[in-house]
Amino acid sequence: LSRLPFLKRGMRLDPYITTTSEQIVEYDFDRVVYEENSPYQNIKILHSPQYGNLLLLDDDQNLAESDVAYTYAMTGNGREDFTDKDVLILGGGDGGILYHLLQQSPKFVTMLEISFLYQMVIDAATKYLRGICHDCFDSLSGDNYLVRVEDCVPVLEQYARDGRTFDYVINDLTDIPISQEPTDDHLDLPQKILDLSLKVLKTSGKYWTHGANTNDVPQKFEEQLKQLPKPVDFLKEVIAIPSYHELWVFYTIWKKS
Amino acid sequence: LSRLPFLKRGMRLDPYITTTSEQIVEYDFDRVVYEENSPYQNIKILHSPQYGNLLLLDDDQNLAESDVAYTYAMTGNGREDFTDKDVLILGGGDGGILYHLLQQSPKFVTMLEISFLYQMVIDAATKYLRGICHDCFDSLSGDNYLVRVEDCVPVLEQYARDGRTFDYVINDLTDIPISQEPTDDHLDLPQKILDLSLKVLKTSGKYWTHGANTNDVPQKFEEQLKQLPKPVDFLKEVIAIPSYHELWVFYTIWKKS
Repeated sequence: LSRLPFLKRGMRLDPYITTTSEQIVEYDFDRVVYEENSPYQNIKILHSPQYGNLLLLDDDQNLAESDVAYTYAMTGNGREDFTDKDVLILGGGDGGILYHLLQQSPKFVTMLEISFLYQMVIDAATKYLRGICHDCFDSLSGDNYLVRVEDCVPVLEQYARDGRTFDYVINDLTDIPISQEPTDDHLDLPQKILDLSLKVLKTSGKYWTHGANTNDVPQKFEEQLKQLPKPVDFLKEVIAIPSYHELWVFYTIWKKS
Repeated sequence: LSRLPFLKRGMRLDPYITTTSEQIVEYDFDRVVYEENSPYQNIKILHSPQYGNLLLLDDDQNLAESDVAYTYAMTGNGREDFTDKDVLILGGGDGGILYHLLQQSPKFVTMLEISFLYQMVIDAATKYLRGICHDCFDSLSGDNYLVRVEDCVPVLEQYARDGRTFDYVINDLTDIPISQEPTDDHLDLPQKILDLSLKVLKTSGKYWTHGANTNDVPQKFEEQLKQLPKPVDFLKEVIAIPSYHELWVFYTIWKKS
């Protein structure tokens, strides 16, 4: 039953990307829109006739202009009313979530995006991913929003100390899989971010996070949720994001009353 | 920039499928659930941990158990009320649309699936695609539905002669691309089916059809729509079906008043 597929070689652009579960997908990229190396990573934006401009960080696929389903999933798929709500976005360098929220009359949206790494991404998105961020990065602050380009852990710790809380916290910073890897300082950074996020989340609030729906990622994450000091409930949605070529799982998490 | 991806060879199962726009996608198939040759085509059902059981006809991907988004798109994505409505499905051999409609108290659903070709598909779906058809093929008729396994053109012509009309006609028989190819008898079969479908559609009715969102397929189809003798309006939705690995376009079509 095995056959070797026809591979396109010698192309100007490498069309092959592997998914998080190591499957090959061929894209229809037809041009490089942007490519730069920051001190921390390679940033590429490639154009696809189907998916629009698509962001790659170190050849790892991030988001494409076709992928508003991702933004919807990370904001509760239309179930929430953001009017007059106080929202915190962790990450979100492509601007999709910020733009989506600003259409819905929030009280205030704070976006914390990691310093150094992401200023170049934000600048590139502002120019070349306008199908995702639209005009929301044209200014990094406004009447009801502020984009802070700095490390989110110290800021979250300060919020926790100050007793500052939010109606919604959206973790667009790390995928669930990363949380399995211990970081340099032997602390589990994603676990730390989850703990801090729940600390700054109002009792009635909601928290969103996501990851690939493969390699036992959801099971491991749900184990982690069960071990939290204060009990939480969750809603799990498995969704196809157009440019991802694998299913992703989105979690809406809230504190048990 | 070009590199050769690592290809898996000598596997029990060929994991590579090409999309309608000739891009390679690697699937995570882990076993053959069913394989038979009918006099007309090869029928395969393969299992994927991500997508569930997946139907292939002559190695052309049809639908997987993960793909309820397809069924929703072909029935108006929740915008329509099927209660007490008279519905005609053309094709639909996997049973997804029939099952979905029967959950919504229709007056009557008639499904016309091509004879010869599809009886084996229906039989295989009944056993191995229950995540799509559930129990709707356990009997091929009921109080409010009938599955007729016969060629749909003569039946549609008879309906047209009898003045029989439907609130909804769902064309799950042919993808839009096929309509570009003239058939043996030098008539454009999909054009004929479109014409007949609109003939048996009530003035207030809706018609659905779909195709890949690549290779100018939508533009060509919209040209075809403009040339219809009686003018129609349409709504176009571009949707990612989980197992398809390319965007598809779904048309809701209705008669201009």
